[in-house]
Amino acid sequence: MPERGFPPEEFRTRITRLQSTMAQAGQTALLLTSPADVFYTTGFLTRFWESPARPWFVIIPAQGDPIAVIPSIGAELMSKTWIADIRTWDAPYPGDDGISLLSETLADIVPEAGAIGLPMGLETHLRMPLGDYLYLTQTLAPRRFVDATTTVQRTREVKSEAEISKIRAACQVADRAFSRITEYASANTTHGQVFRDFQRILLEEGADWVSYTAGGAGQGGYGDVISPATNQELAAGDILMLDTGAVLDGYFCDFDRNFAIIRADDAAKRAYDQLYRATDHVLSTLRPGHQGSDVHAMLVDSLTQQGATPGGGRLGHGLGITLTEWPSFTPHDHTELRAGMVLTLEPGVEIAPGLCQVHEENIVLRETGPELLSTRAAASLPILR
Amino acid sequence: MPERGFPPEEFRTRITRLQSTMAQAGQTALLLTSPADVFYTTGFLTRFWESPARPWFVIIPAQGDPIAVIPSIGAELMSKTWIADIRTWDAPYPGDDGISLLSETLADIVPEAGAIGLPMGLETHLRMPLGDYLYLTQTLAPRRFVDATTTVQRTREVKSEAEISKIRAACQVADRAFSRITEYASANTTHGQVFRDFQRILLEEGADWVSYTAGGAGQGGYGDVISPATNQELAAGDILMLDTGAVLDGYFCDFDRNFAIIRADDAAKRAYDQLYRATDHVLSTLRPGHQGSDVHAMLVDSLTQQGATPGGGRLGHGLGITLTEWPSFTPHDHTELRAGMVLTLEPGVEIAPGLCQVHEENIVLRETGPELLSTRAAASLPILR
Repeated sequence: MPERGFPPEEFRTRITRLQSTMAQAGQTALLLTSPADVFYTTGFLTRFWESPARPWFVIIPAQGDPIAVIPSIGAELMSKTWIADIRTWDAPYPGDDGISLLSETLADIVPEAGAIGLPMGLETHLRMPLGDYLYLTQTLAPRRFVDATTTVQRTREVKSEAEISKIRAACQVADRAFSRITEYASANTTHGQVFRDFQRILLEEGADWVSYTAGGAGQGGYGDVISPATNQELAAGDILMLDTGAVLDGYFCDFDRNFAIIRADDAAKRAYDQLYRATDHVLSTLRPGHQGSDVHAMLVDSLTQQGATPGGGRLGHGLGITLTEWPSFTPHDHTELRAGMVLTLEPGVEIAPGLCQVHEENIVLRETGPELLSTRAAASLPILR
Repeated sequence: MPERGFPPEEFRTRITRLQSTMAQAGQTALLLTSPADVFYTTGFLTRFWESPARPWFVIIPAQGDPIAVIPSIGAELMSKTWIADIRTWDAPYPGDDGISLLSETLADIVPEAGAIGLPMGLETHLRMPLGDYLYLTQTLAPRRFVDATTTVQRTREVKSEAEISKIRAACQVADRAFSRITEYASANTTHGQVFRDFQRILLEEGADWVSYTAGGAGQGGYGDVISPATNQELAAGDILMLDTGAVLDGYFCDFDRNFAIIRADDAAKRAYDQLYRATDHVLSTLRPGHQGSDVHAMLVDSLTQQGATPGGGRLGHGLGITLTEWPSFTPHDHTELRAGMVLTLEPGVEIAPGLCQVHEENIVLRETGPELLSTRAAASLPILR
């Protein structure tokens, strides 16, 4: 288990990288509002984001350290991070929920000709009231707000070794929980009980919390991978898939495992083998310089050559501070893959209409190719007898 | 444990109430993007929101049933809800991540003179890329986007009996987990282990998942209520506070409990008694027609009369589909409290600078006054020997 948190040098490196990208893009400051961006730049880690009541702001100036403009309830915790400039208001405050404080702070550091970068693109959200943002654009004019999606993404997507260690440790938590599958999955157990016990065991194995579990189970496969559990019971011939985003020190794993209950039909075993080989193909082929769309093509080509029908949607994605990060392994995503990116490989096979199987591994891309962060799945479909 | 989900009549009632409020506000349609608003109107329940990759849209027309405009990965699960009109695209799609589909759908049902309501106010976020929203305002012009915060809040804040049953059941899960405190908290146990075991036991007691735990522990009190756990060990004289938002069938509880380890100093016992009496005061005094600010005043007055220093910030809030909902019990929130609202009472006492104690209960406001949903805390500070 890696040491908790990061030394200040880690954050200074992140800020320097952001500021270098900002300078190239002509952004005088960055305004960050999302839990992931706030955590990445400050180290402020809390589950309190679960409350939608209050906005939180971090400003990255063109030079110098970040400024936190946050609700006073967070002052104590933020003061334990490397951030020295912390400005607070007593939120939630109807009529001015931190907006005059934020506006004054930005007006001080951004000249009138300046541009304030804000992530506005694919896979981003603005975590503050829209009305307050619209007010801010008026009160700060002629300063402009511009899209800083690529500034943030090109920086965050390449992980440091310290970040990679944390994601690896989160993967190991899930590895250990999956290895105990016979303790919590067998015929006649309800899906609900399996999902609940899976989370319990992830905690026993060291997860700080379990932000995501999903799965599916049914005869020969499953139809859907994002549903919560039902009270249906596992039965012989079912394929059970469990997927988790367990969190350790603010970093996620995200991979699944498939298991057959008592027995498996040939189609399910075949799909498992096809998915396994398609993943192997990427593990041996992928290199820095490939694009997101290339990974999609590698998986689809391998599955098609094996006679399988590839599943739709994206077949993997980035991973780190959130359960999923860009890029997306679709035909349309041409993001360049670089050494240091942590990624999931998530091919699916459509066994029949409404019946699928999905396989997932977590990797870090090195100069020499992928390095597994999850322990590779069993080479053939595990059968729980 | 109440039956899972809701019958279609529950959703029809919700939509009728929304549409009536929309009509009064001159809103021709509502555009909803948040997990809570999507769940409230459709019953679509998934943890997949944890992935920020894709936006999800629900449109409430002036008359008739909602329309879901969602990523195809959610089509299967949405088709199990009461929603019949489901339009999908293959997300994430760079350049047009559902926006042309959403725009066409809105253009069809909103005349050019119409107004599209969108929550933009306090305690709301827009869960879609800001750039896509700005594009939408242009492509749909001259249709206007207007703030629909009150439309949504005045509807959602009054819970049905079915919703109240679910929140009560979530509270009972936490009640049972707190009653087992001696199994997981004692001197020399690390905070990290206590937090982890608390979550494990919440799952054992029936939580579907545990979206929030926080707490604090220290000699005579704690300084902060939103921090994750450290590896510090509990020690004699510590006051341990555990707070949880455990989720059952999509509904939250949100309350805490305080415990002394082996012994408690007089200041900690006194603070506990003061908080208990302040809560009692609200339980006997609060009635529909009071405002959020009145609850704040009741708590502050009771604490001040007892010689205590009230904690800052809000002293309670709404509760339901998210860990915290409006209104906020601050001096500034004049929301009228109505029968059917589910609320938390969360007074705090500042024992010394940086040392506090916080007490929390969950209630539903009835015509006759508060009805407890959490089992009332022990009348005096429990001491774990």
